[in-house]
Amino acid sequence: MPGNKAVVLVSGGMDSLVTTAIAKNECDEIYSLHVNYAQKTQKKELESFKKIVGFYKPEKSLITDISYLKQIGGSSLTDEKISVINHNKTSEIPDSYVPFRNAHLISIAVSWAEVIRANRIYIGAVEEDSSGYPDCRESFFKQLEKAIALGTKNETRIEIVTPLIHKTKSEIIKIGKELKAPFEFSWSCYKNNEIACGLCDSCFLRIKAFKEIGIIDPIPYEIEIKWF
Amino acid sequence: MPGNKAVVLVSGGMDSLVTTAIAKNECDEIYSLHVNYAQKTQKKELESFKKIVGFYKPEKSLITDISYLKQIGGSSLTDEKISVINHNKTSEIPDSYVPFRNAHLISIAVSWAEVIRANRIYIGAVEEDSSGYPDCRESFFKQLEKAIALGTKNETRIEIVTPLIHKTKSEIIKIGKELKAPFEFSWSCYKNNEIACGLCDSCFLRIKAFKEIGIIDPIPYEIEIKWF
Repeated sequence: MPGNKAVVLVSGGMDSLVTTAIAKNECDEIYSLHVNYAQKTQKKELESFKKIVGFYKPEKSLITDISYLKQIGGSSLTDEKISVINHNKTSEIPDSYVPFRNAHLISIAVSWAEVIRANRIYIGAVEEDSSGYPDCRESFFKQLEKAIALGTKNETRIEIVTPLIHKTKSEIIKIGKELKAPFEFSWSCYKNNEIACGLCDSCFLRIKAFKEIGIIDPIPYEIEIKWF
Repeated sequence: MPGNKAVVLVSGGMDSLVTTAIAKNECDEIYSLHVNYAQKTQKKELESFKKIVGFYKPEKSLITDISYLKQIGGSSLTDEKISVINHNKTSEIPDSYVPFRNAHLISIAVSWAEVIRANRIYIGAVEEDSSGYPDCRESFFKQLEKAIALGTKNETRIEIVTPLIHKTKSEIIKIGKELKAPFEFSWSCYKNNEIACGLCDSCFLRIKAFKEIGIIDPIPYEIEIKWF
């Protein structure tokens, strides 16, 4: 869309890959932002980010570090004392919840957007068909958007765009396929840095979605998966 | 107040010193948080933080780093290419504005508060009698508080307390004096790391306030100041 300039948050996962594809379609200029938070799979996620950036060629890319989230702890993704457990069906917020993480990601994106005068921030958060993290709720982003309007310069206008917020994981794959997103570059596993475990919450949701639409996920898994 | 457990943001400046004194009075437990953002005076501010922590003895203290704000730039406090200018009366937002900085500080405080189950965050932001930064507005903090309620676990309850938001700088000194706050430990200068310059926006506001109430500021200045 003419005139749109966007900061796109890219973790390296499937959702951020598809969000990048959407932003690229909807905006004149995209700026890719990766945030390392000392998560156990940071090496692999950074590698995925670099591949995605290489593919989509944004105007600029920025890699930032908020490793203090490891000091704060409280999540199995950052805390060595808490193991990443395999997926189990529960209505509770899982141990992998990193307290208020998305607020940190959006704040960094806002600071960058204000300096480069971007008017949009894209984040691939998914509300329903996901792990149930409170900072992935649409209502949270809407409220945060109001806070951004008040906490930045009067001439700054920033919209948080969450194109996947009400999509299911299989719908996300379909959108990505239509936009020819390179799924082989994305990484979802919470546990491993080489070959995806296939058992953690994030692998579980990804595999389930690929199965639902009858496509084989192009990334390798440690365990054997019956795709059809 | 019984049951109150607070994360207190402590830059090392006068406002955060007085805020710590207030929080200490109002809460059962305080947790002091310092955030280094690669500002030009980070060395001196960290030193002040340590002295303040040594004086008030919080349950815990945490030093975090968001140097990525330097990568993002756009402020004279972090960007080597932009000089810290002397105070001049203007209604515009000064160059020292660090884009959306307070949102980063609050986000870190929220993550820590959620893990340790603190119910309050204290920040010494001042709205009127200050530099006019948009992220120091009370309306911003109120809106952010609503976003926090939505973006954290349902059982998490966090209030942002801004005891100085509508105070003048001289009122802040008076409150600090009543609470016997050690002003000699605080640092306000934006420019220097050894002896305060006395000319930048922050020095200007501090000196003016001490003069107004007829007290000599206990910290040394590079220029001669006529206190009375």
